[in-house]
Amino acid sequence: MEYIEREKARPAFCLKDYLIQSGGSDPVTLHGAIHRIRDMGHFSFLLVRLPDTIIQCVLEGQAYEKHRPHLHEECCVRLTGVISAEERAPHGLECHIQDMVVLSSPAAPLPFPVNRHKIGPALETELGYRPIALRNSDRRARFRVQAGIVQQFRNFLQTQGFTEIRSPKLQSASAEGGANVFSLDYFGKKAYLAQSPQFYKQMMVGVYERVFEVGSVFRAERHQTARHLNEYVSLDFEMGYIDDFTDLCAMETAMLASVFDYLRQSFAEEIQTLKVSLPSVDRIPSIRFVEAKELVARTYNRKIKDPHDLEPEEERLISDVIKRQTGSDFVFVTHYPASKRPFYAMNDPENPKLTLSFDLLFRGLEITTGGQRIHDYDEQVAKMVDKGLAPEDFKSYLMAHRHGMPPHGGLGIGLERLCMKLFGDSQIRLSSMFPRDMGRLDP
Amino acid sequence: MEYIEREKARPAFCLKDYLIQSGGSDPVTLHGAIHRIRDMGHFSFLLVRLPDTIIQCVLEGQAYEKHRPHLHEECCVRLTGVISAEERAPHGLECHIQDMVVLSSPAAPLPFPVNRHKIGPALETELGYRPIALRNSDRRARFRVQAGIVQQFRNFLQTQGFTEIRSPKLQSASAEGGANVFSLDYFGKKAYLAQSPQFYKQMMVGVYERVFEVGSVFRAERHQTARHLNEYVSLDFEMGYIDDFTDLCAMETAMLASVFDYLRQSFAEEIQTLKVSLPSVDRIPSIRFVEAKELVARTYNRKIKDPHDLEPEEERLISDVIKRQTGSDFVFVTHYPASKRPFYAMNDPENPKLTLSFDLLFRGLEITTGGQRIHDYDEQVAKMVDKGLAPEDFKSYLMAHRHGMPPHGGLGIGLERLCMKLFGDSQIRLSSMFPRDMGRLDP
Repeated sequence: MEYIEREKARPAFCLKDYLIQSGGSDPVTLHGAIHRIRDMGHFSFLLVRLPDTIIQCVLEGQAYEKHRPHLHEECCVRLTGVISAEERAPHGLECHIQDMVVLSSPAAPLPFPVNRHKIGPALETELGYRPIALRNSDRRARFRVQAGIVQQFRNFLQTQGFTEIRSPKLQSASAEGGANVFSLDYFGKKAYLAQSPQFYKQMMVGVYERVFEVGSVFRAERHQTARHLNEYVSLDFEMGYIDDFTDLCAMETAMLASVFDYLRQSFAEEIQTLKVSLPSVDRIPSIRFVEAKELVARTYNRKIKDPHDLEPEEERLISDVIKRQTGSDFVFVTHYPASKRPFYAMNDPENPKLTLSFDLLFRGLEITTGGQRIHDYDEQVAKMVDKGLAPEDFKSYLMAHRHGMPPHGGLGIGLERLCMKLFGDSQIRLSSMFPRDMGRLDP
Repeated sequence: MEYIEREKARPAFCLKDYLIQSGGSDPVTLHGAIHRIRDMGHFSFLLVRLPDTIIQCVLEGQAYEKHRPHLHEECCVRLTGVISAEERAPHGLECHIQDMVVLSSPAAPLPFPVNRHKIGPALETELGYRPIALRNSDRRARFRVQAGIVQQFRNFLQTQGFTEIRSPKLQSASAEGGANVFSLDYFGKKAYLAQSPQFYKQMMVGVYERVFEVGSVFRAERHQTARHLNEYVSLDFEMGYIDDFTDLCAMETAMLASVFDYLRQSFAEEIQTLKVSLPSVDRIPSIRFVEAKELVARTYNRKIKDPHDLEPEEERLISDVIKRQTGSDFVFVTHYPASKRPFYAMNDPENPKLTLSFDLLFRGLEITTGGQRIHDYDEQVAKMVDKGLAPEDFKSYLMAHRHGMPPHGGLGIGLERLCMKLFGDSQIRLSSMFPRDMGRLDP
């Protein structure tokens, strides 16, 4: 009998670990794609793409004579060399190649270079070539940071006693209702693609008190804007036994602070590549919806057109004023009108036209919607009826209420929106590895 | 301006931390649902459900007189009390209630008790009442362990240099092809729900070398068996620069070992509740497909009906023999016939009728399919044509190959299957919070 040994698993080559462990004097074997070749006459610099960085390698002498004629950018190689200090190279290091094997060669050159800081073609072209465009250092850095955000979102919430859940993406009813939902045939029944894990995370508060989920959600919105995707990643949490909705805001503030601390610590190279300015979030200002509207109307001498909702332009202006007044890149806008919030939002007992809900704006864009939910069965049924909904369509959801739910609330964060504003982009599709919009389903 | 302070976020009450910090002598404030009431005449035991455990509380004296008449199971309460040793209680502890507030009361009693070790009704009934059935301790423990598996899958792979990716679930082509795919209208185009992140994780090997994803996948399979779900969670990884496919097996072995170590360490209570026997996986035996078939035929005096695939019964028997011979709960079955493997599987150079692929069986069930992929563009195009596929239907996928890919491979693990076998169940739906099968789309 043959055996596979646990010990045989090999971690990826990590430049930092190598330097710490060996002091950099031992020969090292590493592998990667040749990101860029710079010919210098009788030798070449090879920039080799490692999982999280790029290392400059020097191909010279016999190895140069042997390999250079057959070498192309995007060849994959394994090489042995000695790393030494070289202040003009990235990380102040370069690797002098002693031996090299070419593992694979591309069948065709790239349609555009990916090894410059900027990618040449326009966004639409880039997206068509996304599998290779993502090899660019800026693009790689974006999704490394995005992975870091998700990782720390989860790790922080785990320290706060949250349990990770997995809700189904195929559902029989939709949380938000309306036309913005994809539907499909499910063995003769009509199924909807999840617009959010809303119902499920609320149900699971009855099970674990505090839950979170990171998952795909789907919106069949027919508008093609710079801040909408038809499939995106939602960071959701829901927590029971809250005193009021500011408990949710505090948890989000602490989570964001922890995420940015983590990025600062663990993604320094990516942060530098992207020239990201990480916001400070030890505290976040909070303003009521009505006051925010009035503040903007007053400051910018604007008329209030829609008293029940914020226009995108108003979100930008609120952020601008708050930034000037407090220095904060974030602002909570609270107490949204009940007419614009879903049936599960708890009304403000002091003014039932308002809800105990909030949005979080980040640099001019709403990245979070949240609030306290109704936990009492009768109150929930009454509000459904009030909103013209049929409680019998929401039997499973109401089951949790019927059999006892604590006061609770939660929120959802659009991952790509958070990234878009963090990266300083004006186009959300840059923050999705393979974005889905009305015109794009491929790659 | 009001502010939300980072410091205001409150971690959940954790019994273990409390005992470590205070030695258990200070009064404690905690909250939870009343899982069970045991009336003892002039006092009551309240079993209170905390996020990760249950604590026995004693309601006596004035608090008993005041609250007992209005108290029901599944009431949510906040209480202050003093924790003291009581060896007959769970954890050897009980909390003597000094003060209590009832935060909410259920509108109706539960349709069946959830506070016994076993849930009364049959599975179909339970699934219909899943939002409340999950409040049962056995059910809570299952999905805490499941969350722990996913967490350590990610954490372990991160230590090995893997980057987390997010592939789209709405796709224009399907990886496995065939009829087992859900389709829907996507703004006038036909979209498919992801059967796997296969194409995307391969593309991303060209970007980050090693990637993983935990995500929902969808199979429109028309058979209703004890080991199939129509929506499930796939744990995928893909790694570049492998020497051969046993590198993948070694990484999986090390990952599983790390996951079970973590469960042993961090989920002792859940492991005990579920009476789970955690397998030892320092090494996993490996056997070729042909030899496995012959071994079973010989040992059990069976005829080989289908020489190209394993029947479920054969998977069980292989596991049984290997368990007897080696003591291992796992076995890799390698070198599957090319006729039953997809177009991206690399053929065995020593016998092109076989592939450099494998399944991992766990206690009689296939929980993983993996293998080395073709990385050469021409070889991939040729195999597509050989399999009767049109390369122009896979343009985005082939783009990665065309512009250079390292030797690579990967695998996918069915999370619910792994859990099912770990928990000793004969029915996979117990391992999905809200399972989806041909007849069930709700809750």
